[in-house]
Amino acid sequence: MMRAGMGALIASALLLGGSAGIAAQRQGAQASPIYGVRLPKGYRDWALISVAREKGRNNDIRAILGNAIAVKAFREGRRPFPDGAIIVRLAWRYEPSARNDAVFPTPQSFVAGAPINVQVSVKDTKRYADSGGWGYGQFEGGLPNPDRALVESCFACHNKLAAIEPGADLVFTDYSP
Amino acid sequence: MMRAGMGALIASALLLGGSAGIAAQRQGAQASPIYGVRLPKGYRDWALISVAREKGRNNDIRAILGNAIAVKAFREGRRPFPDGAIIVRLAWRYEPSARNDAVFPTPQSFVAGAPINVQVSVKDTKRYADSGGWGYGQFEGGLPNPDRALVESCFACHNKLAAIEPGADLVFTDYSP
Repeated sequence: MMRAGMGALIASALLLGGSAGIAAQRQGAQASPIYGVRLPKGYRDWALISVAREKGRNNDIRAILGNAIAVKAFREGRRPFPDGAIIVRLAWRYEPSARNDAVFPTPQSFVAGAPINVQVSVKDTKRYADSGGWGYGQFEGGLPNPDRALVESCFACHNKLAAIEPGADLVFTDYSP
Repeated sequence: MMRAGMGALIASALLLGGSAGIAAQRQGAQASPIYGVRLPKGYRDWALISVAREKGRNNDIRAILGNAIAVKAFREGRRPFPDGAIIVRLAWRYEPSARNDAVFPTPQSFVAGAPINVQVSVKDTKRYADSGGWGYGQFEGGLPNPDRALVESCFACHNKLAAIEPGADLVFTDYSP
């Protein structure tokens, strides 16, 4: 299992190797275009904010983690988020588990498959004044996706939330106790 | 948001209050029947092992967290788990998000709703020698469910995994990188 997970991660990294990933690595680019957001050290140990699923083209299951500043703000219901808050969204393929379903009364178990990508949102009202105070990055196999248009779409999408729920500070996720 | 989440938690606690919850509290029972498993302090800050979803009657979305011993074993692919490993599974109602879908191109967003319950597995090969080395408990609104039959069903179900994947040490979840 662990081995399968690591295999998928390595496979993703190798796939990336053929295109954008190696290019980013060659350029020494460890940060996202536009915002210069990096994959935060130790983020995989951060506390859970919530879980979610996207159907449709994404067809993923996801977890949203936060650093201490972000988690504190979520738990206190504090909006806007203070500077220094970092939210990390991990997405994996949404897959039925034949093994688990062999135990359950009906086919009902869906689990996280291969990792898809990790998206990072960093709150810094000064540095990111032009994008609602948030800087964005998307990472695959540990490397930033260098596609400027993709990274531009982060703010474009999050900013749509401002019209629907102005108090959300452009964050889709609510804390799950 | 936070307020809604807390409201749901309080509502769950109040609902429980009418039946088993208060009874358990009155008896001072903070631990599960049979195994005496308690809700571990600080578990909500533990690292994420993976996420999953159960369709059917459960209709939930879930996160699996682990203490440091469990997470280390998961990451190293170590089985059986060492004594002291604790795995905590949190489940929430699986709900479409009309708010998020208003932003996305098609209805596709599902999020965690009200909390359902928290299940705890504790590895202790001596104490729990009769149940494959694992002790179990289920908690609602922070209180242990006192139903012996329900808690007996934990091992009955996990033990079915032994025939399908003997090396899994009765654990359904794999680590998601």
